[in-house]
Amino acid sequence: MWDMRIARFTKDDKTPQYAFVQKDEQDGKDYLVVLSGYPFGAQPVEPTGERFPLDTDGLRLLAPVIPSKIYGLAKNYEAHAQFMHEAGHSDIAHAPEDMVIFSKPSTSVIGPDDPIVIPPFSHDMNFEPEVAVIMGRIAKNVPVEKAMDYVLGFTCVNDVTLRDLQGADPMWTRAKGFDTACPLGPWIQTDLDWKDAKISFTLNGKDVPEASGTTAKLIHGIPEQIAAISSFSTLLPGDVIMTGTPNASGSLKPGDEPIVHVEGIGSLRNVVVQG
Amino acid sequence: MWDMRIARFTKDDKTPQYAFVQKDEQDGKDYLVVLSGYPFGAQPVEPTGERFPLDTDGLRLLAPVIPSKIYGLAKNYEAHAQFMHEAGHSDIAHAPEDMVIFSKPSTSVIGPDDPIVIPPFSHDMNFEPEVAVIMGRIAKNVPVEKAMDYVLGFTCVNDVTLRDLQGADPMWTRAKGFDTACPLGPWIQTDLDWKDAKISFTLNGKDVPEASGTTAKLIHGIPEQIAAISSFSTLLPGDVIMTGTPNASGSLKPGDEPIVHVEGIGSLRNVVVQG
Repeated sequence: MWDMRIARFTKDDKTPQYAFVQKDEQDGKDYLVVLSGYPFGAQPVEPTGERFPLDTDGLRLLAPVIPSKIYGLAKNYEAHAQFMHEAGHSDIAHAPEDMVIFSKPSTSVIGPDDPIVIPPFSHDMNFEPEVAVIMGRIAKNVPVEKAMDYVLGFTCVNDVTLRDLQGADPMWTRAKGFDTACPLGPWIQTDLDWKDAKISFTLNGKDVPEASGTTAKLIHGIPEQIAAISSFSTLLPGDVIMTGTPNASGSLKPGDEPIVHVEGIGSLRNVVVQG
Repeated sequence: MWDMRIARFTKDDKTPQYAFVQKDEQDGKDYLVVLSGYPFGAQPVEPTGERFPLDTDGLRLLAPVIPSKIYGLAKNYEAHAQFMHEAGHSDIAHAPEDMVIFSKPSTSVIGPDDPIVIPPFSHDMNFEPEVAVIMGRIAKNVPVEKAMDYVLGFTCVNDVTLRDLQGADPMWTRAKGFDTACPLGPWIQTDLDWKDAKISFTLNGKDVPEASGTTAKLIHGIPEQIAAISSFSTLLPGDVIMTGTPNASGSLKPGDEPIVHVEGIGSLRNVVVQG
């Protein structure tokens, strides 16, 4: 049976392809089962017959999609709003009643193991582990009760933020949209308990429990986010919604190795370098 | 000789194609000289031999590009900053010293004569006529003195803004990024006196002189904008920079017919409808 994990990969730096990630019942290892096309299109995709162990030399997972756009929600967990207040980043102690929606461009997307590059003009880069929603169908004016029909699946995202620029600039265009600000992966998980998906975060091999949480504590839930965003903007297949970081965020320095983990999806590891 | 105007069009709603817009010396009419490909790619494009008068039945100009992203500058003319203050939209009487950069997604782009749709949740839509820069090459960390080498050309843009939401939302994601918020066209003009391009605006057939101006009065010039944006975000071929609106903006109501005109480029006409 399919694991319902959809990955995008390159082998020997050739043209990216899509694959199912499938566990082999005999050797217990994960394999990439190569697909004939692009899982967001009108044409059905099917296995080509080609298959590689995930740990094949020269094989690299890529961001599972290069979306046309990425929306995100700010302060969508009460614990994060309180952290931001206590850390001195906000005068307001509580999460706002209305959704605060921002965006990142496609050029901010990187994949698993790719470097997050600190721009030379920032001295305060923060991690924000989150669940990302990947749209599967064109969505405009979608009602809450039908919203999940438009979703292909979920992946991990690190909503990397330049905290100093978030304060200095009126818009978050630089703070959240700089190149490499959107690590995405490792794959699209189509089946997820999205009402209670557990998010955790590891920095340099150590668990950071104050950054963890569950989507059960989302202020604005995933169907509500899709409905609200699609009321003003057409979501295209592959478009991404970053649902919010559940709790504390913290500093990323050159050499750091952040890992976003969502139970039921997997782990997204990156490395931090100075630009 | 070529006019160096590059248009994207559809005939009888078939697949969009690119064309040079060329004036015929004998009949004095504009013709679309169809091109073999996409003028932003690595392959050179050349005329296919096919040619249509611009007023051919069933022929429609489209937005000259669907960019991966659109950046814009807020309050990049002193006259506009003063207008915003006098109109009660801003507490501050002067333009900010630093660039205020925002973005619009590709799904906000519409073409000439397309409807600008007022979303049901807004009651204060404003026009903002501007010169748009169209990038021709991948640009990252481009110095000011080389910035114009990365430009393919220029077009007209109406940076349509929901003024009520711009005040209500902390980010301008809805106010400037809603579907139809980025009318673009009529074509890409490769040769333009971009240091003194004259912008004017017509509403329902009447000139609106208080909305007019020239890029000679830009606070942050076009090369400076390209350098600043490319210092944090990779600009891709076809990406758009909206350089700022020169002076007053004003209200758009259902039935209105706004026209942005830039001397040396042409006119971008749209119609306003209630969504």
